Amino acid sequence: MNRKKIVETISPFKDFSEKYVPLIDRFIKDFFDKKIKHSSLPFMKEMYAMLREYCTRDGKRVRPIVLANAYSGYRKGRDDFSEVIKLAAVIEIMHSFLLIQDDIIDKSALRRGGKAMHLLTGEKYGPRSHNSNIGSDLALIMADVLFANSIEIISNAGIRPVIKNEFLKVFSSTYEMTAWGQILDILHSLPRNFGFRKNVAMDISSLKTAHYTIYYPMLMGYILAGGSDKKESGRIGEFALPLGLAFQVRDDILGVFGRERDTGKPEDSDIIEGKITLLVHFTVNSIKGAEREKFLSLFTMVKKRKREIAFIRGMIDKSGALEKSMELHGRLVETSAARLTSLKMRSVNRDILTGIIDAIRKVDI
Amino acid sequence: MNRKKIVETISPFKDFSEKYVPLIDRFIKDFFDKKIKHSSLPFMKEMYAMLREYCTRDGKRVRPIVLANAYSGYRKGRDDFSEVIKLAAVIEIMHSFLLIQDDIIDKSALRRGGKAMHLLTGEKYGPRSHNSNIGSDLALIMADVLFANSIEIISNAGIRPVIKNEFLKVFSSTYEMTAWGQILDILHSLPRNFGFRKNVAMDISSLKTAHYTIYYPMLMGYILAGGSDKKESGRIGEFALPLGLAFQVRDDILGVFGRERDTGKPEDSDIIEGKITLLVHFTVNSIKGAEREKFLSLFTMVKKRKREIAFIRGMIDKSGALEKSMELHGRLVETSAARLTSLKMRSVNRDILTGIIDAIRKVDI
Repeated sequence: MNRKKIVETISPFKDFSEKYVPLIDRFIKDFFDKKIKHSSLPFMKEMYAMLREYCTRDGKRVRPIVLANAYSGYRKGRDDFSEVIKLAAVIEIMHSFLLIQDDIIDKSALRRGGKAMHLLTGEKYGPRSHNSNIGSDLALIMADVLFANSIEIISNAGIRPVIKNEFLKVFSSTYEMTAWGQILDILHSLPRNFGFRKNVAMDISSLKTAHYTIYYPMLMGYILAGGSDKKESGRIGEFALPLGLAFQVRDDILGVFGRERDTGKPEDSDIIEGKITLLVHFTVNSIKGAEREKFLSLFTMVKKRKREIAFIRGMIDKSGALEKSMELHGRLVETSAARLTSLKMRSVNRDILTGIIDAIRKVDI
Repeated sequence: MNRKKIVETISPFKDFSEKYVPLIDRFIKDFFDKKIKHSSLPFMKEMYAMLREYCTRDGKRVRPIVLANAYSGYRKGRDDFSEVIKLAAVIEIMHSFLLIQDDIIDKSALRRGGKAMHLLTGEKYGPRSHNSNIGSDLALIMADVLFANSIEIISNAGIRPVIKNEFLKVFSSTYEMTAWGQILDILHSLPRNFGFRKNVAMDISSLKTAHYTIYYPMLMGYILAGGSDKKESGRIGEFALPLGLAFQVRDDILGVFGRERDTGKPEDSDIIEGKITLLVHFTVNSIKGAEREKFLSLFTMVKKRKREIAFIRGMIDKSGALEKSMELHGRLVETSAARLTSLKMRSVNRDILTGIIDAIRKVDI
């Protein structure tokens, strides 16, 4: 057994994921199997099969695992994981809801090693219609089916009513805030000029990722465990928000300097889509004069060629923006790591969070 | 006082609407006012103001009124209309959620006497971006904000947990079934050929309108009143589904033969969009040979000229499809009217339903 293998074997995060991810995926699969079985019309069966495949594609399941780990770490008394698995699955199904919409908006072709939903529906149903947009139109409404399914699963979860109601409140905040983050992102993609407030990249990351990926799933787990102490949920925020921001900064760095086989996303997509990430923010603030003009004119081009993309990437590196982003990323990760001990959860579940912190700390470029 | 005025004054439906529609609209307005006040970023305030305007545009508020009337007709004991108004408002906000998506898909310009949301956002935010699709992209995610808002209002409604849970179940069925209806509609719009199952127009109407517009809102009101008798909810279905179908058949007829000032929709939009309504179904089944070929080739054209639209409308009339649709509409309305007395609700609320039946019975062409 080599060293790497040993490290992996003793990782509590990996153990926890290996235990619960299959349960979450199994629930999702069974849910859609039942939907397929009980659908009254053939097209519903076909489309539920597409949704089953889409929602169970390989993925890290970060959000449901963060939820399940918080539940496990904060719960007192009787274990009721069977119901919590359902609600962790809801978070994953709602993630697919957002990914389908994301890919329609970004016109992306790939998602989690498969085709984007709007491409699948376009290929399957396109030939029957003169509507050239039928793929996106169908995918958009299939996302709505997932949201209705999520509410159904919540309504059927056998948890205490007062807890379910608190869960619904965090659920609504989650998708409201994420929507605002997505809107802010759209408002600042492919911009015609750069007259933005200074911290818009951080605002987008905070709304779209930091709350969505770590903070709210943790808060949901805490609530499901019966937690209601405002001080502790405040501490969860102080721990989770920097980590969520670090997650987004890492994603931004890998989006420009990572490799497709590591990230699962086409290289350079952030540059092609003209997203205002922190890297871009730092770059634009570091360069001046003709260099700045050239960077901005290339960055805001709708169709960019390879050479232009390479120039943009080079400028982000040369300007010091990559280094600044790496530094900020490191600071955020360590802030969060230092706050971990303040959380009043079981130590085994804190160890699992350490595993998540370690995964976010590593930036392979 | 002329005769028309007298009839209007004594209509229990009109009285009920005049009492509750302002309360529902007031709740929606106040909800968004609070959102505007508490939004942390300027663009959120702007967009919440747009959503407030959109959600409170003139409309008949059929669904919230059907819900409120069923609650009132079935409730026993203490009146708790303050909470029911909130849930009636949710149904109206969710209606806006669907209308925004509908207009994106159909590329419609008008809605309820104002501009479609994707046009408003496109005009306001288009100039800042090279993204030519920014209006639709933003409107799509603003619809998501409405869905999150709806869940928030439900979570804050002060009703018994067991009732809230039943409400959530019907809520999820409502938007699942409506989504399937919308998908079936998209699958059969602008078709390349007519090899459809015979009753596809009825399937679309049943999924997209009959359940959505009358049955589920009534069922929600029944549940909110504490109703749980499966026999009574069955009777509600037997009453409401024919009426909902009649509502859609009427809408289909007016969509081709109605006037814009009555319907609020551009004339001929169903023909332009190539929707497979019952009118089209009857027409295609009535004509043969060269006439059928000509009708189909014109109907499936993506860009239709005035003369072609007039030909299609004329053929729908000449083929007997208009008459058949009017007959079916009449039969459905009278079926529903005959079943009204079987409902175990207060007679004043049955009278209000009579007013709704009368409104659906009238087809002004």
